[in-house]
Amino acid sequence: MPRELNINENIVKLEYAVRGPIPQRAAEMKKQGREIFPCNIGNPQALGQEPISYYRQVLSLVEAPSKIERERKLKKLFKNNPAAFEGFEDNEFIPDYFLDLAEKILSQLGASIGAYTESRGPQFIREAVARYIDKRDGVDDRTGVPADPGKMYLTNGASEGVRNVLEMFITKPTDGVMIPIPQYPLYSATIRRLGGTQVNYYPDEDNDWTLSRSELERSISEARKNGVDVKIIVVINPGNPTGAVLDEQSVKEVIEFAKEYNLAIIADEVYQENTYGLPFFSFAKVLGKENVLLFSLHSVSKGFYGECGHRGGYMEVRNSFKVKDSEIDLADLFVKQASVNLCSNTVGQTLTYLMVNPPEEGSEPYGQYMQERKKILDDLHEKATMTKEAFKEMKGVECFGKTGALYLFPRLNLPAGITDFDYCMNLLEATGLSTVNGSGFGQKEGTTHLRFAFLPPKEMLEKVLPEWIKFHNEYVSR
Amino acid sequence: MPRELNINENIVKLEYAVRGPIPQRAAEMKKQGREIFPCNIGNPQALGQEPISYYRQVLSLVEAPSKIERERKLKKLFKNNPAAFEGFEDNEFIPDYFLDLAEKILSQLGASIGAYTESRGPQFIREAVARYIDKRDGVDDRTGVPADPGKMYLTNGASEGVRNVLEMFITKPTDGVMIPIPQYPLYSATIRRLGGTQVNYYPDEDNDWTLSRSELERSISEARKNGVDVKIIVVINPGNPTGAVLDEQSVKEVIEFAKEYNLAIIADEVYQENTYGLPFFSFAKVLGKENVLLFSLHSVSKGFYGECGHRGGYMEVRNSFKVKDSEIDLADLFVKQASVNLCSNTVGQTLTYLMVNPPEEGSEPYGQYMQERKKILDDLHEKATMTKEAFKEMKGVECFGKTGALYLFPRLNLPAGITDFDYCMNLLEATGLSTVNGSGFGQKEGTTHLRFAFLPPKEMLEKVLPEWIKFHNEYVSR
Repeated sequence: MPRELNINENIVKLEYAVRGPIPQRAAEMKKQGREIFPCNIGNPQALGQEPISYYRQVLSLVEAPSKIERERKLKKLFKNNPAAFEGFEDNEFIPDYFLDLAEKILSQLGASIGAYTESRGPQFIREAVARYIDKRDGVDDRTGVPADPGKMYLTNGASEGVRNVLEMFITKPTDGVMIPIPQYPLYSATIRRLGGTQVNYYPDEDNDWTLSRSELERSISEARKNGVDVKIIVVINPGNPTGAVLDEQSVKEVIEFAKEYNLAIIADEVYQENTYGLPFFSFAKVLGKENVLLFSLHSVSKGFYGECGHRGGYMEVRNSFKVKDSEIDLADLFVKQASVNLCSNTVGQTLTYLMVNPPEEGSEPYGQYMQERKKILDDLHEKATMTKEAFKEMKGVECFGKTGALYLFPRLNLPAGITDFDYCMNLLEATGLSTVNGSGFGQKEGTTHLRFAFLPPKEMLEKVLPEWIKFHNEYVSR
Repeated sequence: MPRELNINENIVKLEYAVRGPIPQRAAEMKKQGREIFPCNIGNPQALGQEPISYYRQVLSLVEAPSKIERERKLKKLFKNNPAAFEGFEDNEFIPDYFLDLAEKILSQLGASIGAYTESRGPQFIREAVARYIDKRDGVDDRTGVPADPGKMYLTNGASEGVRNVLEMFITKPTDGVMIPIPQYPLYSATIRRLGGTQVNYYPDEDNDWTLSRSELERSISEARKNGVDVKIIVVINPGNPTGAVLDEQSVKEVIEFAKEYNLAIIADEVYQENTYGLPFFSFAKVLGKENVLLFSLHSVSKGFYGECGHRGGYMEVRNSFKVKDSEIDLADLFVKQASVNLCSNTVGQTLTYLMVNPPEEGSEPYGQYMQERKKILDDLHEKATMTKEAFKEMKGVECFGKTGALYLFPRLNLPAGITDFDYCMNLLEATGLSTVNGSGFGQKEGTTHLRFAFLPPKEMLEKVLPEWIKFHNEYVSR
């Protein structure tokens, strides 16, 4: 019997509710044959969301390049003699646009997709990401600061980027990171793993989760009183779990605050496409020429892409600086850090390239791409609206924030003595609906919430929402 | 100007020679148009090694499932009317075996490959890995301890597994990890990043890098004298950078040693297929029913697979135990740790499945698969032998160890005052050959080495080896 080796207490203690007891119980119930509605996690394709065909067709060719030439031959045969291809439609062949693009990607990789790339990802992908950012923000040399491909890092999802940044700054227990409450537990868990201090600030729920300077000041001064050296502020926009979309003023407040207190900003912007018609204000754009250290993150997992399993993403650094007592640039240090794991996965890298490089307007596949994109986003918006309507029929439930991301985070206002964990567990047992209790994300003392990912097909929602309403009104009236 | 935020010193100081100054200089030279022979890294497909077609054909279908039905239709048309497919051969169609397997994988995933999986990877893949291990080791309930799919973790390459284990155990600066010198710098870098202590032990170069109990004892007692609490011993077999294949006795020595001193073992076995005819003794097999905590690692990056960029791999835990003062099993703690990043990339997972689940004997693609496999391994062996022959013509160079992995690690025996870093840098400038200096891996005081990855095409070797011999004999005679 091995002696009881000491295990990292930070891992023993960390909590990750999104994969915690409620989804675990849901998994058991599913094994026993119960119907489960998995609304605990933003995992669209697990709930039947179709992948964007542009992405998959190109990835499929990049994996098996011999299929490119073969497809060209097939298309020629079909064109010359369609009768021989009984039952085949024109649209069953792969558009030349995809064939050409797959060839171009392979040629720019300079090797098979099975080779390691540069630690931070291939140059051509980092350049494409930079162009995407500049286009999104309407920025050029004249109006702002264009993105720099040399300060771009491709990562296995955004989670890896977050971890890499936090690891770079947390060096002792008194190193503090400000995070919004409620927050995505990646942050609390990673800060704990690295042995730093979590410093809470509270967006104003009743004002649609806006950020105010006074709350940020309260938070940092309290932390400093306790001897915490706050180094970073994290903002998640659109919010997770709140789903709230920040206005420009909130983004500005954070930048001014960070400037005054010399904090770095982590802008988690993975839901930037999920604003359902509202404008998105990126930190990079609002930052402009201000000299504040910014890390912004994006991934292929959310938006209309929904390619969670492929673990693709990027981190961008702005306003890097020389590390104290050395000639090393912080941006280069991130390259060294990345090099220990050699590179992020190349399929995720390629998908990141496709995400930032959609079919050109007017090209053969453009129409279908735009249609698929619109269908997914419209559908998500409709499902969010349906769910918000259902909340109106639940006694005491209030839901704030302009709808964004993939989540709703209703305030349950449960009777005293009932926790939201109990509520969610009972909801699961009664209806098969799997959600995450608000306490898993943190929330203002005395409030109760849950996070609902509005991803299931409409038919499923139509089935489960009435059951939820019924459960709720009975449960709170017991 | 942001204040000079304190940066993690452990990252500032870490060194990663495989991607260090020599390969960086090589990249510059390449940009300037010089021909470079990149033998600094085990990245086979970057040097033209063809991917195994089995892997890529199935991955390609899993990315674009609509192609499965289409291929069945095409095959039927071809069969009925081959004349209509002018210029097409039978073997240009995808074997039913691959079509069926891709369908089976998708059905076992229960969702598109774009969905997150369980944190540690899907059950069916973990089961396939367990079967693979048992088959490899010829183990069943009667003869040993079968592998447990519940203690298997799919990872982004083996690097992630190493990091996860070390993070679990390193909690303070006096926590020690024994590593062989020379070693793969992933270990030294990760120990440094996590703030633990590296404890060196020296395999016996002159005896083909075998391990002896007395050297292990020397190493641990010295560390303990310095107040280091040694928790883990790392073994890399076949070795990196040495390329040496361990005999059964060496593996046994380590297990007995670990048992006596209550250490966990990390067995880095990513080169298990690269033994070129020599037997491979896995730690799991030699361990048998001994109750020693073992972590064994494998990946899709090496062997004959060479799929580095896909970042697939697994970690297996044997002889887990309950964490002190808690009811938590260590094996479950690894699940929680993995859950923070949600899951490893699903394409890497699928490739891991294909690696452990080759085409069945007698199936349609079996012959081609075996042929491709043999070609790659024979080729590698031949290239290692060619290079070893060249060493005989280099004054003072000696190369020990039975050939394994993808590397040779010749002892250069350079004249006093010349470092192997200088040698490698000059070799690069003179010939375009990019290698890694022995000091990048650590080596016995006073010795000089380099690591050479025997991956370039034979024609390239035939070109560069004579130039290397010429450079060498001139350089050491200056």
